[in-house]
Amino acid sequence: MAPFGDLLSERAVAVEATLKRLLPSAEGPEARLIEAMNYAVFAGGKRLRPFLVTASAELFGVSMAAALRVAAAVELVHTYSLIHDDLPCMDNDDLRRGKPTVHIAFDEATAILAGDAMLTLAFEILAAPETHSLAEVRCELITALSQAAGWRGMVAGQMIDLQAEYQTMEPAGITRMQRLKTGALLALSCEAGAILGRAPEPLRHALHAYAHDLGLAFQITDDLLDARGDGVRLGKRTGKDGARGKATLVAALGEERARLQADMLAQQAMAHLEPFAEKAEIMRQVADFVVHRDH
Amino acid sequence: MAPFGDLLSERAVAVEATLKRLLPSAEGPEARLIEAMNYAVFAGGKRLRPFLVTASAELFGVSMAAALRVAAAVELVHTYSLIHDDLPCMDNDDLRRGKPTVHIAFDEATAILAGDAMLTLAFEILAAPETHSLAEVRCELITALSQAAGWRGMVAGQMIDLQAEYQTMEPAGITRMQRLKTGALLALSCEAGAILGRAPEPLRHALHAYAHDLGLAFQITDDLLDARGDGVRLGKRTGKDGARGKATLVAALGEERARLQADMLAQQAMAHLEPFAEKAEIMRQVADFVVHRDH
Repeated sequence: MAPFGDLLSERAVAVEATLKRLLPSAEGPEARLIEAMNYAVFAGGKRLRPFLVTASAELFGVSMAAALRVAAAVELVHTYSLIHDDLPCMDNDDLRRGKPTVHIAFDEATAILAGDAMLTLAFEILAAPETHSLAEVRCELITALSQAAGWRGMVAGQMIDLQAEYQTMEPAGITRMQRLKTGALLALSCEAGAILGRAPEPLRHALHAYAHDLGLAFQITDDLLDARGDGVRLGKRTGKDGARGKATLVAALGEERARLQADMLAQQAMAHLEPFAEKAEIMRQVADFVVHRDH
Repeated sequence: MAPFGDLLSERAVAVEATLKRLLPSAEGPEARLIEAMNYAVFAGGKRLRPFLVTASAELFGVSMAAALRVAAAVELVHTYSLIHDDLPCMDNDDLRRGKPTVHIAFDEATAILAGDAMLTLAFEILAAPETHSLAEVRCELITALSQAAGWRGMVAGQMIDLQAEYQTMEPAGITRMQRLKTGALLALSCEAGAILGRAPEPLRHALHAYAHDLGLAFQITDDLLDARGDGVRLGKRTGKDGARGKATLVAALGEERARLQADMLAQQAMAHLEPFAEKAEIMRQVADFVVHRDH
């Protein structure tokens, strides 16, 4: 079997080809908006969420073309959230994936509008008949995505994260914040495959539980990488969380315990895949990758 | 028959009751986000778009409960766009409907996130079975809303509008910008009723054409009101467009010709309602109201 890194890169190529087809090309006086959208989407990235969408869809025999559309929609939502989070009034980041962030490369207004347009486009993609022949399934995808991304999910997480700067937060509060900010969209990525494949409820729940633990393991690893601070490899400024007094589990538990926690969560994530037996081997590799990656 | 103003206020009460049910209430550390959403939504406003949704739905015998849900979704999208447009990096407005704008009453980050959450919630509302028993119809509503609000609609219009400051723009370019910025969501409001009511294509087109002209008449009237500058009645700073050198038809044509143009567009809008005969009397009153309002 190919090493997981190769599989991830290969899938990223397919996802990017799909995004290329779904994104508009620049024309007319609004060209700047379209350019900013394309700049943000094609700035690289591991495409982990799209990978999870397609890998979970494969568990249920969903066509790759359909899975890739949903994967593209999820990646658009993820990218829009990065653009808005990077803004000066939020995390004020000037570097992302080794390139100037959108508000630096363009300007703040364009960055906000590009994010707005990408979020909107994600729902347009899901609603189209090409995504699934049954409108019922398309509506279910839209419901799940809006719940994961909105006021009870990702946006709430970012709101709490902003307020958590310079505050002490209990580990339970930090965990909840990260579950909302990162976990909700990761969980949606896994559930999307199950929705597309009309999976029975217990299997959908198993994937949700897997993704929940995976999300927390992912976030702790992110914070560990930030604390260690290899900015060149990560393509962003590091050590910022500590300098800002941001609430992270690494700060609350210390590096060693945080690392153990991440490993334990990855093991726990894999345990939830038991009902899928060998079929979920790739999902297990994802969990392993998430805690052992170096960028 | 009751004067149109009374009808509009009465419908606004029903729309606001629906919005109250659909918006979350503030709890937990993300309470600030929810408060900002509620602050923005319940800051008053004519609720013209919701009125158009319900009035067009009535043409096809749609239940008021379903129409009100779609009306609420459209108002959420309209309000999110106002929040983002008011930001310092965009139009930098500190007053809206007589109250401090969201980024003044809260802060910029909260304003951006509240807007993001409202846009997302709009799609969640449309995707829910309570909106229409047929998922096919819900998907059609989502497609139409995302197209009206996204990169080929409202967001593009705002992008062009921002670039139009301090630039001279031909009347045709201004008209296109306003069609995107204001017209697309107004047109969607009228089409939404037709989609809900599964109206035949020619009637849907008639409503679209009506809304197109209505939108332009609406925008010219807005610009005339801004130029005349009764800020107390309008609840916002006036005369800003001129001071900024913003491209408006009032600046391009002069007040008198702009007023004539608005009247002509309102007449033209009404003419498109011909296939509906008496049934569209209220839609005619809307067109009359739009050009003769004083706020």
